[in-house]
Amino acid sequence: MPKENFELLVKQTRTHRRFKQDQAITTNQLESLIKLARLSGSARNCQPWQYALVNDPALCDKIFPHLGWAGYLSEWKGPASGERPAAYILCLLNQNWLKGTDKEAHFDLGIASQNMLLGATSQQLSGCRIGAFSPKLADLFTLPDHLKLELVIALGAPAENVVLEEMASPDQVKYWRDENQVHHVPKRPISEIIVNVDLR
Amino acid sequence: MPKENFELLVKQTRTHRRFKQDQAITTNQLESLIKLARLSGSARNCQPWQYALVNDPALCDKIFPHLGWAGYLSEWKGPASGERPAAYILCLLNQNWLKGTDKEAHFDLGIASQNMLLGATSQQLSGCRIGAFSPKLADLFTLPDHLKLELVIALGAPAENVVLEEMASPDQVKYWRDENQVHHVPKRPISEIIVNVDLR
Repeated sequence: MPKENFELLVKQTRTHRRFKQDQAITTNQLESLIKLARLSGSARNCQPWQYALVNDPALCDKIFPHLGWAGYLSEWKGPASGERPAAYILCLLNQNWLKGTDKEAHFDLGIASQNMLLGATSQQLSGCRIGAFSPKLADLFTLPDHLKLELVIALGAPAENVVLEEMASPDQVKYWRDENQVHHVPKRPISEIIVNVDLR
Repeated sequence: MPKENFELLVKQTRTHRRFKQDQAITTNQLESLIKLARLSGSARNCQPWQYALVNDPALCDKIFPHLGWAGYLSEWKGPASGERPAAYILCLLNQNWLKGTDKEAHFDLGIASQNMLLGATSQQLSGCRIGAFSPKLADLFTLPDHLKLELVIALGAPAENVVLEEMASPDQVKYWRDENQVHHVPKRPISEIIVNVDLR
């Protein structure tokens, strides 16, 4: 793949929080994302994550009220009916498979989720990683003790515009929405994230 | 980008530990990877990682002895001279920028490192994430107290073959090398990483 094509895919892979809810996501589509997660690197090669796929609208409706959306948009309580996710991937940490630390497990999940979200973009879908959810979400299900729900990936065909902008100062990290409901995300300048380190 | 092209890129993006050491990696190439890291999602959008770029052969030589390679290949002490990485990206956690937990920081670094390693593959390069290194590595540099070296990404033009195979049983996670020095990596079957969860 030409490098420019991948760079464009990365640029297009933005977190979206409003979706075309009536555009269904098939089980095949979800499985194609799990295939990408499966091919991710894993610390100690232990591959401790399992995934539950949800695209049934009634179950999506049960999941939605337990999710926290966009911490910095304090006035906004999440997507309205019609703009909610069409599917979810529930990311479950299998404690029996984990060989290292929790930190390593979450490092692995960062890798796997990026494969999935880049893959979603390549299918004209998008998503949002949600780590802020009510403990009641896991209570919806009969999960064995060794499986721990740690992340929800919400998915759908995106129905909002997201633009990146250069961060004005190192503490100006909050994303924001303008009057046209365009979502702005400040990114640190490249000159600030590359550091020179001097030899002793 | 067609979905098949991205799936192929993910398949090709394997951890490599032997490289064509004399094939230099330019600073421009390293910066192109940091640009991809910059565009990664980040919990609370705090973007707590900074990166130091190393492609000077003399400095690479200083870094190499502090790295741990391939925990499961206990007989192998790492790549021989001529097969060592041509460059490194040192991943430094900026404690002043971090807003959440260490777990979130490492989740973010999983995302960012995957963007970088997929990007490396798109440039016919490859790499290895190394979390096992001696504390003496950080001591080579005059790092301010708020920067903590947490991961080293070794990079180079790959000089070994890596094949994936289906894991035979859930605890058979060790990668191994055959008599032709081909590196085999067992991956859990898709049928085991997708789980059905029942509603209560």
